[in-house]
Amino acid sequence: MRPDGRKYDELRTIQIQPDFIMHPEGSVLIAVGNTKVICNASIEDRVPPFLRGQKKGWITAEYAMLPRATPERNMRESTKGRVSGRTMEIQRLIGRALRSVVNLEAMGERTLWIDCDVIQADGGTRTASITGAFVAAVLAFKRAVARKEIVKMPIQSYLAATSVGIHPTYGPILDLCYKEDATTDVDMNIVMNGRDEYIEIQGTGEEATFNEKELTVLLALARKGIHQLIQAEKAVLGDWTAEQKAGAAH
Amino acid sequence: MRPDGRKYDELRTIQIQPDFIMHPEGSVLIAVGNTKVICNASIEDRVPPFLRGQKKGWITAEYAMLPRATPERNMRESTKGRVSGRTMEIQRLIGRALRSVVNLEAMGERTLWIDCDVIQADGGTRTASITGAFVAAVLAFKRAVARKEIVKMPIQSYLAATSVGIHPTYGPILDLCYKEDATTDVDMNIVMNGRDEYIEIQGTGEEATFNEKELTVLLALARKGIHQLIQAEKAVLGDWTAEQKAGAAH
Amino acid sequence: MRPDGRKYDELRTIQIQPDFIMHPEGSVLIAVGNTKVICNASIEDRVPPFLRGQKKGWITAEYAMLPRATPERNMRESTKGRVSGRTMEIQRLIGRALRSVVNLEAMGERTLWIDCDVIQADGGTRTASITGAFVAAVLAFKRAVARKEIVKMPIQSYLAATSVGIHPTYGPILDLCYKEDATTDVDMNIVMNGRDEYIEIQGTGEEATFNEKELTVLLALARKGIHQLIQAEKAVLGDWTAEQKAGAAH
Amino acid sequence: MRPDGRKYDELRTIQIQPDFIMHPEGSVLIAVGNTKVICNASIEDRVPPFLRGQKKGWITAEYAMLPRATPERNMRESTKGRVSGRTMEIQRLIGRALRSVVNLEAMGERTLWIDCDVIQADGGTRTASITGAFVAAVLAFKRAVARKEIVKMPIQSYLAATSVGIHPTYGPILDLCYKEDATTDVDMNIVMNGRDEYIEIQGTGEEATFNEKELTVLLALARKGIHQLIQAEKAVLGDWTAEQKAGAAH
Amino acid sequence: MRPDGRKYDELRTIQIQPDFIMHPEGSVLIAVGNTKVICNASIEDRVPPFLRGQKKGWITAEYAMLPRATPERNMRESTKGRVSGRTMEIQRLIGRALRSVVNLEAMGERTLWIDCDVIQADGGTRTASITGAFVAAVLAFKRAVARKEIVKMPIQSYLAATSVGIHPTYGPILDLCYKEDATTDVDMNIVMNGRDEYIEIQGTGEEATFNEKELTVLLALARKGIHQLIQAEKAVLGDWTAEQKAGAAH
Amino acid sequence: MRPDGRKYDELRTIQIQPDFIMHPEGSVLIAVGNTKVICNASIEDRVPPFLRGQKKGWITAEYAMLPRATPERNMRESTKGRVSGRTMEIQRLIGRALRSVVNLEAMGERTLWIDCDVIQADGGTRTASITGAFVAAVLAFKRAVARKEIVKMPIQSYLAATSVGIHPTYGPILDLCYKEDATTDVDMNIVMNGRDEYIEIQGTGEEATFNEKELTVLLALARKGIHQLIQAEKAVLGDWTAEQKAGAAH
Repeated sequence: MRPDGRKYDELRTIQIQPDFIMHPEGSVLIAVGNTKVICNASIEDRVPPFLRGQKKGWITAEYAMLPRATPERNMRESTKGRVSGRTMEIQRLIGRALRSVVNLEAMGERTLWIDCDVIQADGGTRTASITGAFVAAVLAFKRAVARKEIVKMPIQSYLAATSVGIHPTYGPILDLCYKEDATTDVDMNIVMNGRDEYIEIQGTGEEATFNEKELTVLLALARKGIHQLIQAEKAVLGDWTAEQKAGAAH
Repeated sequence: MRPDGRKYDELRTIQIQPDFIMHPEGSVLIAVGNTKVICNASIEDRVPPFLRGQKKGWITAEYAMLPRATPERNMRESTKGRVSGRTMEIQRLIGRALRSVVNLEAMGERTLWIDCDVIQADGGTRTASITGAFVAAVLAFKRAVARKEIVKMPIQSYLAATSVGIHPTYGPILDLCYKEDATTDVDMNIVMNGRDEYIEIQGTGEEATFNEKELTVLLALARKGIHQLIQAEKAVLGDWTAEQKAGAAH
Repeated sequence: MRPDGRKYDELRTIQIQPDFIMHPEGSVLIAVGNTKVICNASIEDRVPPFLRGQKKGWITAEYAMLPRATPERNMRESTKGRVSGRTMEIQRLIGRALRSVVNLEAMGERTLWIDCDVIQADGGTRTASITGAFVAAVLAFKRAVARKEIVKMPIQSYLAATSVGIHPTYGPILDLCYKEDATTDVDMNIVMNGRDEYIEIQGTGEEATFNEKELTVLLALARKGIHQLIQAEKAVLGDWTAEQKAGAAH
Repeated sequence: MRPDGRKYDELRTIQIQPDFIMHPEGSVLIAVGNTKVICNASIEDRVPPFLRGQKKGWITAEYAMLPRATPERNMRESTKGRVSGRTMEIQRLIGRALRSVVNLEAMGERTLWIDCDVIQADGGTRTASITGAFVAAVLAFKRAVARKEIVKMPIQSYLAATSVGIHPTYGPILDLCYKEDATTDVDMNIVMNGRDEYIEIQGTGEEATFNEKELTVLLALARKGIHQLIQAEKAVLGDWTAEQKAGAAH
Repeated sequence: MRPDGRKYDELRTIQIQPDFIMHPEGSVLIAVGNTKVICNASIEDRVPPFLRGQKKGWITAEYAMLPRATPERNMRESTKGRVSGRTMEIQRLIGRALRSVVNLEAMGERTLWIDCDVIQADGGTRTASITGAFVAAVLAFKRAVARKEIVKMPIQSYLAATSVGIHPTYGPILDLCYKEDATTDVDMNIVMNGRDEYIEIQGTGEEATFNEKELTVLLALARKGIHQLIQAEKAVLGDWTAEQKAGAAH
Repeated sequence: MRPDGRKYDELRTIQIQPDFIMHPEGSVLIAVGNTKVICNASIEDRVPPFLRGQKKGWITAEYAMLPRATPERNMRESTKGRVSGRTMEIQRLIGRALRSVVNLEAMGERTLWIDCDVIQADGGTRTASITGAFVAAVLAFKRAVARKEIVKMPIQSYLAATSVGIHPTYGPILDLCYKEDATTDVDMNIVMNGRDEYIEIQGTGEEATFNEKELTVLLALARKGIHQLIQAEKAVLGDWTAEQKAGAAH
């Protein structure tokens, strides 16, 4: 029995509130248990200089935490004057994940900005960010298709992410909260698409290691969680694949 | 009649949601019309080096906007590597306002960190931040008094802020939304305490000027708005002045 | 009787030395008592990118202090690698004040750079900077009109600034020196034009407050001081309004 | 047949030159094909503040490339004034990898600094850095044990890293050179210890994905490569495990 | 005949105004022709951490130009966020020069801060800074001796600096103004003490070179100029060597 | 007899290994005794904005040390976020030295980037960098001439640099190693071309001084060393002057 009463293969409660902020093209508040992230998707009608004239789009992601998203207050990165290595790593991960399910050519020469701002943290902020960012991106593209700015939905598959780990007491577990994460040796973040394919596997055993067999167990847990996350996304997004087909018919 | 149907002396709807984020000692989501700010108050058990050993506390404030709090996406200040002049000006204003109603000696050698993060902007973000920060600070101090970390409430009066301006069409108006602010020549931010005294007056007429008479009208409008804001604060905070007296009896 | 023997409504001695530095289009050394500021005005034949093609000019101001302008040596902001919040606030204030009396269209696509460098500080450096910057700007524009680079004087009114405050011993006083400023609770900077209109009111009562009646007294003191400052400006500038009319006749 | 004539499961030639630079406690020039990295290990007799008094050591890694390590010259990060996200990600990876095989308690309150400077790049610089850094670290610790500064070797296992990928033409391949890396969709870096356990798996399919079966093939290739790399390390390091036992007998 | 009518071996007019700014321990406005530099010397009662407990002092120098010290406005280094290579080079040069004539042990554990701020530039700003800084330093030390904070004058010799060069039209010349400097190929800055010894020789022939014979001529010119500069210093400083002896008698 | 057995006028062993790194247009590993510097020369087909359209090239140099090039580890300048004054001074020196022997017009609108990275330091890193950079530059230009990108060799003379000093025990000495440098009072770096002309003389006597006679002795020592260094360059470069003539014949 885990600290919050979950079973080893149980996700925390997922809540995805669409249209959370009024200005962005796509906006979502995602809650995975007590972890809460505002994910905003902005579409800008130009690409960075290195892509100009190539008739394709670009996706870039930024990630930040409010200073009191955590039990102890953290100094703001704007005040420090530099973004930490951890933040950069997460931003790059979110960007890669999104790009893997978007047809950049279908976007035209546009940039999709993803902003993930963690307002409350309890473990798994980077995977919650990816899942929330995906929903915000679909909302933004739906709006752009509705306005006929983009001809067809550039999204090619669902996308979700979760964490798994091997806990000294609970063994292999799915979707670690902060308390579990802090006491877990092996920790793995998995990003998958809607066709059961891996986008990204990041497994680390800083003060521990893991063998072939353990890896197999962890990957199975992750797949189970991602199936459920994609169900939650579908509940919010409705049948956008149908709309996509309609859009594609133009 | 103003764009959103308000009368010239009418505030926007105020909503103050206490305990919005779980980790901070005090946390509030304040909405003034469409302007929404998360105000977190953190109490740290030490003061900056220049105050050590002086048996008094310190209050410092930070302010930021999410990139898509606004219609156009703004670059993050952490990414730019420097905080803008506008941000610094607002941070200094919030800090001064809070310090004016807090008995720093009664805090002991502690720092109160105020974090105001605008998640949606529609004008008046700095005045909403001051009003929300005050409520968050009271919540934080109440908790510290309840835990007997602080002997008595260090708050000495209520505190609230609003904006007034002279609009070319609507004339003198209270509580400007962004659309009004962008077309107003004279713009003034007023901070007052619960004893009808001024803490701060910041009046600017960048492409216009104002005379003695207009100043008098604007100040009267501001006072009216601040009385209502303090009522909204009282509705959330309950009778903390009573608790303060009880605390003082120790 | 104030520390330097002045009456409550008495300005310090004002000295304005025109053409202080040889290179700038306009240059002034202003001394307000012991506070001394070099104010240089530079005219550059282009505007920042966001204004290009709009057939109007721009005014921007920078402010700095020499490290030993003050009793204790301050670290240079170039060495720190960042400009402080205080500096940014003052720079923004000087820029707004100047823009309020200049017809930007009449400047053509030019930038007026104002540089205020405090070489000796004894309170009131920001208000002395505004008064000195105004004189430097007029000198620069006169030269540009004389060279027929600008058709008519773009200055629309005089401009001056001073400080007022409520001192625990001396009561309401005009033009605070550093010693007074350090012991004054309520402190207000006032910027006005030559038509007795307010450009900017910045009143702060960090560890005190002020009421309606006190505000009225302070504003009257400030007006008196500003009238005298404008007289001092006229003594230096001669009858440039006449030249302006001549320029306008082209 | 791959561009340089290798088979799909063939490593590039490995050369490890110990004692390359005279000053560091441990120094290695590692060449993996045309990729060349100077790996220096420095032992400092103190730990960062957050670890003081805990009777354990710390390991931190830095990574950089000379501007012309690559076909096109890259701007120096010192000149840019900030370290890129890619550099930070690699530095964190090298540090975690080393910490996984070192007994930090056995180090005493010392810091092991790892510096990996790529002087020539042809793909796989981060995995070559890990392999080279491990050898430099062992050399440094051997010297510290010989000088009786450290009682016993704090190294607990061998450590090596390599890359694998799925190439559109060659299929799954081991140890990608730059030309292969640039045209490979799925790319994975694997760090393992001498007991056939995983330390880190980082698999990315930015413009592609991979399934369960492909993952299994890639992991088998990586294990094969790592076994060979550890053989190369043993050829350089001699029987340090024996020395370790002797050291432990003190 | 040179542009300003000087002979090849003639210095520009030197003016040294002592006690220019009221706050610093030593303050000078030095004018060498049209080049004007405020040189302030501050004595701080502590040394940087690396010198603590060594019973000796330290001297550090900073140098800056006002943005309009030059014909074209230069961006402020505080605004750029970094100090240029040229500035750092000059700061290091001034610091070394001063340290060469000061007995650091006699200073006690104090830091002498030298601030050279060029308010008007017409060539030779770094050599004028050294000469002015020396006078400011002597004034500061005289005051410290008078207050009995320092037992005896720590100054061991006079110090002055000038420039020489080989001009394509005028041949070898002393004390170059900006116009000459801009058209001179070989340019040399010489720092000497009062005993006719070299402290620093910096000769550069960026687009030219110089031979043995030319070097001899240039050095003779420089010596002549420095003798005159030291006379100008003596005129300001009076017979401080006598005071030094008196101080030494304690 | 000096610490490493050399005579007072003896250079350390010089080794110049051409084509050290595979990517740059010119690459050299230069060893002067234990001081080892990788010097890479890159040719880029454009010039900085301020030179565009002027039909001439530009040369710019960067210099860095690996953190463990020295006995104690130094913090990386990329990690500090700023380049030190010492580094900037050296970079500017290397750039000036190279520009003095290159015909910038003959380069066409190209930039020559010189990168000097010290991998092992034992005194004299800046002079070794200049000598090595010269060889790398010639190699790069030879390649550009061979590819007919540049019509004729833009190099106009040989270039080399060394250090001399006055040691309290050994007297005037040539080519100081670190141990000598640390105990020498007067220290001078000399850059000369192949026609026995001075490019740069930088002599400093921070805690000492030097007179006319000592200067003469030091310059003679430096000339002797530079003649030998130019011989070493010729041994590596072959008869490029002949090739230059052939190139010029086009």
